[in-house]
Amino acid sequence: MAKIAFIGLGNMGGPMAANLCKAQHHVTAFDLSAAAVAAAVEKGAHQAKSAAEAVKEAEIVVTMLPAGKHVREVYEKDVLPNAKKGVLLIDCSTIDVDSARHVAGLAQKAGHEMIDAPVSGGVGGATAGTLTFMVGGSEVSFAKARPILEKMGKNIVHAGDSGNGQAAKICNNMILGISMIAVSESFMLGKRLGLDAQKLFDVASTASGQCWSLTNYCPVPGPVPTSPANRDYQAGFTAAMMLKDLLLAQQAASAAGATTPLGAEAAQLFSLFVNSGHGAKDFSGIIRMLDGK
Amino acid sequence: MAKIAFIGLGNMGGPMAANLCKAQHHVTAFDLSAAAVAAAVEKGAHQAKSAAEAVKEAEIVVTMLPAGKHVREVYEKDVLPNAKKGVLLIDCSTIDVDSARHVAGLAQKAGHEMIDAPVSGGVGGATAGTLTFMVGGSEVSFAKARPILEKMGKNIVHAGDSGNGQAAKICNNMILGISMIAVSESFMLGKRLGLDAQKLFDVASTASGQCWSLTNYCPVPGPVPTSPANRDYQAGFTAAMMLKDLLLAQQAASAAGATTPLGAEAAQLFSLFVNSGHGAKDFSGIIRMLDGK
Repeated sequence: MAKIAFIGLGNMGGPMAANLCKAQHHVTAFDLSAAAVAAAVEKGAHQAKSAAEAVKEAEIVVTMLPAGKHVREVYEKDVLPNAKKGVLLIDCSTIDVDSARHVAGLAQKAGHEMIDAPVSGGVGGATAGTLTFMVGGSEVSFAKARPILEKMGKNIVHAGDSGNGQAAKICNNMILGISMIAVSESFMLGKRLGLDAQKLFDVASTASGQCWSLTNYCPVPGPVPTSPANRDYQAGFTAAMMLKDLLLAQQAASAAGATTPLGAEAAQLFSLFVNSGHGAKDFSGIIRMLDGK
Repeated sequence: MAKIAFIGLGNMGGPMAANLCKAQHHVTAFDLSAAAVAAAVEKGAHQAKSAAEAVKEAEIVVTMLPAGKHVREVYEKDVLPNAKKGVLLIDCSTIDVDSARHVAGLAQKAGHEMIDAPVSGGVGGATAGTLTFMVGGSEVSFAKARPILEKMGKNIVHAGDSGNGQAAKICNNMILGISMIAVSESFMLGKRLGLDAQKLFDVASTASGQCWSLTNYCPVPGPVPTSPANRDYQAGFTAAMMLKDLLLAQQAASAAGATTPLGAEAAQLFSLFVNSGHGAKDFSGIIRMLDGK
């Protein structure tokens, strides 16, 4: 099995590293939090004292970090100067497209293959090993990374060259953020018009209003028993994470010259919701703000 | 079979009346356009010289008119004063909820049963007899109307009391209008980030961005061969009709005290598209405006 360095053992990285251990890979783990490293060791990982040390003997490096600046820093200071020649680099962080392409360019110059492979599926998917990976990078790198990603996820999609994994994720999540608000507005309008939520669900879910936000993640309690609305909007996918992705989309739109009026408005609305103290709630909880609660 | 008066023989009403004729009903037809009446007679309807005359011997009255003011006028001046006691009144127009409830109230006072039964499915669905009807009215009226509606449509949904057919339609179509813009913004952002449209489709259609606007009516050519994008945005469902529904939703939201920020923005964007001379194009053509074309 492969020698894997895993850097970034947070809510997502922790269970992802655990699944690689479970698949009998030799995982050397590092995080700035000693508690996170201890938890990984508990799951079978080997402790590294620094990111540089974790990387030294690795054949594959997996990173799961909060934002573009962390990814740039860790790759520039720790990973690239210390990795053996020809290592496969897999960045699973959700970051801006520009940083992803910048770091992939540096990696290539240093003689490594690198993919960006952001995920969707949340902590539940990370734990169960059922994440979706949206991958940017060459066909060759994608083929090499696939068996590793399959230990952590179920649906592995190649979205094109470097940065396109990030692009696919923010484009998808921009639709998701907007459609969740659309569905929420619709239910709140219906409620005030005297329309029963279940009736509206029955109509829209079989008509042209059908969308994942409605049929898989309905923001009112009742119609979809598994949706967070039935457990007081306990996340799930937090409003803070949705805001992060919508802001990445806005940053990319601004840099690339794309016009995204509803994406911009959705970012503003989630910003209002998060800044009102609801960042840790599930993102579908935004319906309560639209209800005036 | 039933004696049916059919008033309003436009793009939708014409083929709907033809399907009632085909089902061997005795249809007496009226429209302000003599050509529309002649076309209905061609399909087997009997000509009436006025709405009042059409209604006189009818057991069932079906109306398909452009807006609330026409429905109020036709019911107040022609239908209610001339209909026999206990006639079943079916208004298939898409109008504001208030007008629908007002007219239903007048009908009830005059001793008639009335349902609002707006449709979705477009001219294609009207011709093929595969429309969806969203019905507001009593259980009893709904049960009586169902066999008639089934001659014109496939999916007949009872959404609650009077006006709730209209409410369900505008709530559904508000999601539709918003999600079409969301999908369009996403494809245009992806394009500028170098993301192939088919790749984005493959990711989003199997992930949380999935929605009818994407998977059944994709606004870029290619991924969904039957979508209007593949025939230069020939409607389909026109941008003008989408704008009408979004404005009805805004009117209802304003009257009922609902907050619909994305619904409002979608109405503004479709207004811009229609006012730029594209009202007759399919509503998915709004992607070209977002592309700066």
